[in-house]
Amino acid sequence: MTARRQDYYLDELKVGDRFESGGYTFTESSIIDFAFAYDPQPFHIDADAARKSNYGGLIASGFHTLSVAFRLIYQTGFIRSASMGGPGMDELRWLKPVAVGDTIRSVGEVREIAPSKSKPDRGILKFHLTALNQRDEAVMTVTFIILVKRKRGA
Amino acid sequence: MTARRQDYYLDELKVGDRFESGGYTFTESSIIDFAFAYDPQPFHIDADAARKSNYGGLIASGFHTLSVAFRLIYQTGFIRSASMGGPGMDELRWLKPVAVGDTIRSVGEVREIAPSKSKPDRGILKFHLTALNQRDEAVMTVTFIILVKRKRGA
Repeated sequence: MTARRQDYYLDELKVGDRFESGGYTFTESSIIDFAFAYDPQPFHIDADAARKSNYGGLIASGFHTLSVAFRLIYQTGFIRSASMGGPGMDELRWLKPVAVGDTIRSVGEVREIAPSKSKPDRGILKFHLTALNQRDEAVMTVTFIILVKRKRGA
Repeated sequence: MTARRQDYYLDELKVGDRFESGGYTFTESSIIDFAFAYDPQPFHIDADAARKSNYGGLIASGFHTLSVAFRLIYQTGFIRSASMGGPGMDELRWLKPVAVGDTIRSVGEVREIAPSKSKPDRGILKFHLTALNQRDEAVMTVTFIILVKRKRGA
């Protein structure tokens, strides 16, 4: 299933469930502003240096791409009430640069569901995310590990 | 060695080299502003909801902690000229919440150095980072995979 419905709890999800977000366009100012605070490498904040780099122009910080991709999938509301935060992420790969004007959307898929043995009200969701650009090229993949409440109202 | 010197190239680094940053204090407004843009879960942006959550108060988005921890280690200048960007990250773990007023610093360690077989001017650096709070508790660990130029001037 590809779902756009909202607000699942762990017991309502199953392996293979998919969620797809809307898009977000990376502007020059958003790329420079984020990177100036968190990742001030020349190819993220200096248009002239970026043109002379391997990338041929400004590209978004990978941390910016990650943060936007998470916001987009979270904004679908798929675990709006049930999320209890995340213990981690595995195998993040930045596959292609995100340039000024690129539009990114997120596609998420449930990979693993593991109810906690010690705490019956919660469990671990492993959730694979692919961020795609406007040419449907994967620019980033990652697996999130998220602590999720099992049942509505519990 | 624990280094505070700057601007290494891949051939100048060796496994075990360590770098330590200064600190950064997470304020309430920085936590809320970052999360409102990228990770608007209630326990990151709503002080009242956060007080009633498992966390007992506002905590920083993990993406915020990650971005700050990278900025702090990058700011040491350890690969200022040589970094060509990052293919990815492995095994990120958020081990403890970062609350309002917590001060985080980064300790990085070279774990693996692999010159490229196809491109003699560069190679892959695997760099393990631990973010520590003011009580010296690890709040996050992650391994960065970074593409680094091998030699100065090459």
